Amino acid sequence: MSGPVNVSAGRQYRAIPGPSVVPDQVLQAMHRASPNIYAGELVEMTAGLIPDLRRVARTQHHAAIYIANGHGAWEAALQNTLQPGDLVLVPSSGRFAVGWSEMADSLGIETQVLDFGTRAPWDMASIGEVLAADTDHRIKAVLGVHVDTSSSIRNDIPGLRQLLDEAGHPALLMADCIASLGCERFEMDAWGVDVMVTASQKGLMMPPGISFVFFNDKAAAARAALPRISRYWDWAPRANPEEFYQYFGGTAPTHHLYGLRAALDMIHGEGLDNVWKRHAHLAQTIWAACEAWGAVGPLRMNVADRALRSHAVTALHIGAPDGTRLRDWVEQNLGLTLGIGLGMAAPKSPEWHGFFRLGHMGHVNGQMVMGLLGGIQTGLTALEIPHGTGALEAASRVLAGR
Amino acid sequence: MSGPVNVSAGRQYRAIPGPSVVPDQVLQAMHRASPNIYAGELVEMTAGLIPDLRRVARTQHHAAIYIANGHGAWEAALQNTLQPGDLVLVPSSGRFAVGWSEMADSLGIETQVLDFGTRAPWDMASIGEVLAADTDHRIKAVLGVHVDTSSSIRNDIPGLRQLLDEAGHPALLMADCIASLGCERFEMDAWGVDVMVTASQKGLMMPPGISFVFFNDKAAAARAALPRISRYWDWAPRANPEEFYQYFGGTAPTHHLYGLRAALDMIHGEGLDNVWKRHAHLAQTIWAACEAWGAVGPLRMNVADRALRSHAVTALHIGAPDGTRLRDWVEQNLGLTLGIGLGMAAPKSPEWHGFFRLGHMGHVNGQMVMGLLGGIQTGLTALEIPHGTGALEAASRVLAGR
Amino acid sequence: MSGPVNVSAGRQYRAIPGPSVVPDQVLQAMHRASPNIYAGELVEMTAGLIPDLRRVARTQHHAAIYIANGHGAWEAALQNTLQPGDLVLVPSSGRFAVGWSEMADSLGIETQVLDFGTRAPWDMASIGEVLAADTDHRIKAVLGVHVDTSSSIRNDIPGLRQLLDEAGHPALLMADCIASLGCERFEMDAWGVDVMVTASQKGLMMPPGISFVFFNDKAAAARAALPRISRYWDWAPRANPEEFYQYFGGTAPTHHLYGLRAALDMIHGEGLDNVWKRHAHLAQTIWAACEAWGAVGPLRMNVADRALRSHAVTALHIGAPDGTRLRDWVEQNLGLTLGIGLGMAAPKSPEWHGFFRLGHMGHVNGQMVMGLLGGIQTGLTALEIPHGTGALEAASRVLAGR
Amino acid sequence: MSGPVNVSAGRQYRAIPGPSVVPDQVLQAMHRASPNIYAGELVEMTAGLIPDLRRVARTQHHAAIYIANGHGAWEAALQNTLQPGDLVLVPSSGRFAVGWSEMADSLGIETQVLDFGTRAPWDMASIGEVLAADTDHRIKAVLGVHVDTSSSIRNDIPGLRQLLDEAGHPALLMADCIASLGCERFEMDAWGVDVMVTASQKGLMMPPGISFVFFNDKAAAARAALPRISRYWDWAPRANPEEFYQYFGGTAPTHHLYGLRAALDMIHGEGLDNVWKRHAHLAQTIWAACEAWGAVGPLRMNVADRALRSHAVTALHIGAPDGTRLRDWVEQNLGLTLGIGLGMAAPKSPEWHGFFRLGHMGHVNGQMVMGLLGGIQTGLTALEIPHGTGALEAASRVLAGR
Repeated sequence: MSGPVNVSAGRQYRAIPGPSVVPDQVLQAMHRASPNIYAGELVEMTAGLIPDLRRVARTQHHAAIYIANGHGAWEAALQNTLQPGDLVLVPSSGRFAVGWSEMADSLGIETQVLDFGTRAPWDMASIGEVLAADTDHRIKAVLGVHVDTSSSIRNDIPGLRQLLDEAGHPALLMADCIASLGCERFEMDAWGVDVMVTASQKGLMMPPGISFVFFNDKAAAARAALPRISRYWDWAPRANPEEFYQYFGGTAPTHHLYGLRAALDMIHGEGLDNVWKRHAHLAQTIWAACEAWGAVGPLRMNVADRALRSHAVTALHIGAPDGTRLRDWVEQNLGLTLGIGLGMAAPKSPEWHGFFRLGHMGHVNGQMVMGLLGGIQTGLTALEIPHGTGALEAASRVLAGR
Repeated sequence: MSGPVNVSAGRQYRAIPGPSVVPDQVLQAMHRASPNIYAGELVEMTAGLIPDLRRVARTQHHAAIYIANGHGAWEAALQNTLQPGDLVLVPSSGRFAVGWSEMADSLGIETQVLDFGTRAPWDMASIGEVLAADTDHRIKAVLGVHVDTSSSIRNDIPGLRQLLDEAGHPALLMADCIASLGCERFEMDAWGVDVMVTASQKGLMMPPGISFVFFNDKAAAARAALPRISRYWDWAPRANPEEFYQYFGGTAPTHHLYGLRAALDMIHGEGLDNVWKRHAHLAQTIWAACEAWGAVGPLRMNVADRALRSHAVTALHIGAPDGTRLRDWVEQNLGLTLGIGLGMAAPKSPEWHGFFRLGHMGHVNGQMVMGLLGGIQTGLTALEIPHGTGALEAASRVLAGR
Repeated sequence: MSGPVNVSAGRQYRAIPGPSVVPDQVLQAMHRASPNIYAGELVEMTAGLIPDLRRVARTQHHAAIYIANGHGAWEAALQNTLQPGDLVLVPSSGRFAVGWSEMADSLGIETQVLDFGTRAPWDMASIGEVLAADTDHRIKAVLGVHVDTSSSIRNDIPGLRQLLDEAGHPALLMADCIASLGCERFEMDAWGVDVMVTASQKGLMMPPGISFVFFNDKAAAARAALPRISRYWDWAPRANPEEFYQYFGGTAPTHHLYGLRAALDMIHGEGLDNVWKRHAHLAQTIWAACEAWGAVGPLRMNVADRALRSHAVTALHIGAPDGTRLRDWVEQNLGLTLGIGLGMAAPKSPEWHGFFRLGHMGHVNGQMVMGLLGGIQTGLTALEIPHGTGALEAASRVLAGR
Repeated sequence: MSGPVNVSAGRQYRAIPGPSVVPDQVLQAMHRASPNIYAGELVEMTAGLIPDLRRVARTQHHAAIYIANGHGAWEAALQNTLQPGDLVLVPSSGRFAVGWSEMADSLGIETQVLDFGTRAPWDMASIGEVLAADTDHRIKAVLGVHVDTSSSIRNDIPGLRQLLDEAGHPALLMADCIASLGCERFEMDAWGVDVMVTASQKGLMMPPGISFVFFNDKAAAARAALPRISRYWDWAPRANPEEFYQYFGGTAPTHHLYGLRAALDMIHGEGLDNVWKRHAHLAQTIWAACEAWGAVGPLRMNVADRALRSHAVTALHIGAPDGTRLRDWVEQNLGLTLGIGLGMAAPKSPEWHGFFRLGHMGHVNGQMVMGLLGGIQTGLTALEIPHGTGALEAASRVLAGR
């Protein structure tokens, strides 16, 4: 054979774990003149976004929209419920749990991080012990990352609620669903979550730029008890605005709101249960290929137990420098971009080049996933990285329901 | 004659004081697939945005981009320089000065507001006295709104610097240029401004969603002296990032960055001095019409002295309920949206209906302004609101340079 | 005063007589991935376009869509009804009547042009005489341009039908409504028109690229009697397709079809009668200004009689070189583009520089027209071209219904 | 296993043989306000399109742009070179050769079709005999379809030139490159082609709506000898316009021209030779999978000989009703649209359901092709259609250059 030919020119597929692929409908909706922000279409439309956001979060409670990325939503959740000197418990199975705790730390909040590494979910017994031991209820909140985008571990949020209940502990249960909302089952009210944060650029299929905090009455009471809250982060006027600008603590994110309307229409048009099933089915398809590749050679999925894997992102290790070589090859030759590894090694360190991730969140379907897997197969082959055979057919059988 | 016919169907012109008209080039640039956020085009492009932002701000110093609206930029400026218990001085000539002081107040910062009403600029003597009297330098910063969008007064930022210098006062000089940057002369370094905040949706011609804080080394030193700063607002990593995500304290506002690139290209393509001249010329055109209308009947401009008027926004009073009637009529009949009055009366109170504003900021040219003025003339006529004659020709003569 | 400042940077207004301003809704609808052309959404949508096109044409009869400009629709109408050696009568009051006759001539069709100049409508008596004299019915069709875009004269289509009827003449009545459809009253069936041609880029508010031929059963019978018809132009399969591709004689104009859907939704959403009223009211507004300017100095409207003026385009003369000077000045200084004169003098000849035209068709409203007129006023002033006073206020009074 | 889950919601991939996938750059370029059509940017840009079109066609000769689909370009080529009663020779290996001959027939041109079926290329010996026998040169043109989109056979255009030369026959050599230009090698001048037609919606990556005719001086001479030519089709003013509108025989296709500019920039940016190599490599990838599938069960490629296969489209047979079942399944379940079979059986007849086609033309890259193949594999599996194993890995090895 004559060696590879560069066949990258065509539609680029960025299979990174966010920002995810933005649907044409969302981009079309955002390509418009600036609307009036005082009356008319935008003002009326915005009121209708709130119930549809709540439906995605499975909550009857309150929703606040922020012009911010997910880190901003983290801060918003903390600023509305905690004050300097408060203690929070942060069970960690990845970089983003650490990030949230660092955010709390920067606000003067004391953090107790339970570090379960980057390849295992929370150890529920350990968490239970800490809660039980906290008899004077110094812990004011437990910050739980539902799916850690770095490790692709999905943690047990309902289990965390059960631990709090068993310990009779009044701490707020706060969940980060940035990488899971709109991708896999999350039931804010049924699971007893008090505060949930998420952002626009993953399961919600939008460009980054807005994020969301959902909260229940218990969390609202915590806010009411604070001596002060920054006006920008204060969720009370955002959730119950008297004037339109209060939804956003100032000027509305006009174009993102139109995009959000289109994205919510797509999600509810498909049906949230169907959206979850789609993500689950595509995740299983991807796992089938990864497991087959891993039968021979260095590739392994970060999370061994299928029950603990995210349906939206998959973290992998293949050994340095092949992670980076593979990512580079498929991008430069096939028009396929894979995600870098995160939180597994110091950025750009030698070991860092051994990790990568796949995003499969939001606007993703069967043919896209087969393109993703076919691209990886091709990269492994071109780079002569040892791998098991039959991966694509194994994935295809899962996809076919056989 | 047969009475008016609804002729609103056509291109809508929203002559509100922000969000301003977004150029097609900006919308085109934002209509794109999600980019890779770890390497490649976006990462390279972002580095180039910073010097071009600095050129608009006329500074050699530091720039931080925030996913936030202007209120977020206000908070960012405060969070990086002040702590609870600090005192700030806020000379006010409009609603937005009050708003910034309220923001400070919500953060536990003590505020001393010098209220000069909504029709007059700062009284420089009074400010000078306060500064001179503050011999123990309790005032840590002076918050000056360059152009208050509510009153359309332009305040004297260089004069404020002079007062500080004359008093030998070390307080930081912080300027809000949300309604002026990219519209009229502002010289951050030459005028001795330590911190400047602005946002995307006015002179920068973009959808709302990102805002900016510029700061010099003195302000950076103030930050360095703080015990802690929220990670979201911390400008240090944003201005000097080691990793790309640090520019934005998390996920990048991908699509807004492409829009910003297009907007900066337009501004620097035209030349910032030319942009300022254009705004000045169009403002004079508008003033000529308003002054002619006001020769007879109730219309008056909020700012009597031409030297004190913003070049980007014009606040007017016509008496209730004619302000609202006029706004409604031109929107419903001609496709022209005027801005509501802000900060002049309680929202939706009887008196509130007497005020309105014109936005003429950013992507605005001669034919647009004549459409705006022609629309107002038509509304005045249709509603039989008394007004002076010859306004449109007077405006046209100014526009023609005659 | 200091002379004019270039204030052209802003939204450009191209007030040319087509292509007209394309609404954002149409552009949004066209910004999409290529659809399937064999089944699904596009195929279903296309069937629904036909009745909505018929409603704009006020006909119960047949419609054919062509990928072509208006000249292509001219040829289509001729190719389906006439053969070499046939005679057509072409009453002319402008360049486009001549153009259609030249098209016929190029096909070997004999043409009898009745030239009524460029400032007068058809002389109905003359036409009646020709028809009466044609006792052996050599004339197979009369080609009537409803509104000639070059002269802005509107001709009397129902009167032409009456002449044919009075003469008992069987010739087909064919109307060119390229510059009038969707702008002013046209009633294909009620007026007894056998064939009507139009195009997308004027009253239908779309980019150029598709055009339309409507025909009744009498015209269909003429086609059936022809020995042969080119497959591309043949309207029979287009109007009654068995397969989807036959609508378009090959590949469908996919993106234009989505744009057409949006444009028709806008027209029928406003109501065709309202669309006509809007154009009439805006035309009267423009005339009021032009008549006032013309009271002093060189400006004159091409058509003296209001009853004969198009509601969509206005042709003017101001004397060379001021037509060109005025067009150049308002474009370069204000962001306003006026149309060149057409058919009044040899292109780029000295005299040609004395003519210009205004387009006011399709997506146009009150504020746009005031911007157009204000721009002209400013240009006249800047260039010191003598003109009457009070034009803008006169226009504004008409617009206001006073 | 639990059966398939609908995972179609995501980016749709329409792998049909045109309209092909339109790049974002092209759609962005087309999303704009109507330009001035008399002067300025559009007029200047258009002049630059012609040499860049010529470079794609590999000709130094003339180019005419038509607002029309490919069928319109067929007619244009015929109308400029032939008249009723002339004879053309049409060697056929698919539906589109027949279509072009029918187009000629509708114009009164006599056609001699040499039908070589739908699975074989031209029989060069037979063609040579016909040409040799035509000693009085009644044949005025030979119409050769380079790649027949229906059968995916690529015919030997240089060989056809050789036959004409060997016979000393003066007939024009006319090539249809609708499905090949911008996809695989075509050398108009080097191969001695006199007239070439193509269209926008395949290798040129644009929405349908414009098409192209290239011609040399010999063809121009044929036109000059004709008694008359329709003004719409006449290529002379289009190729050598005195006025801008003559490029297009009327109003310019404004938005398509901006799209064409973007598309040509992409092609020449990649390099035409690289574009050809990319298509060849992707075609070989597809063939590897199809051949592997065909090793067991009913799937077969229409063209057995690799040297005769198009690089842009692949026709397949799988037996009724499995062609339709497969197309339906992958569209409804995976978001992948395959092309219907064309010209192999009566539309919608029982046998028709056994055929399908794959488009791989224009904006297509490695990951897209693996998505296409992975989708087919999945459909075959889900529907239990027998097929050989190892197809995806075989394809991937080719793609990897191994």
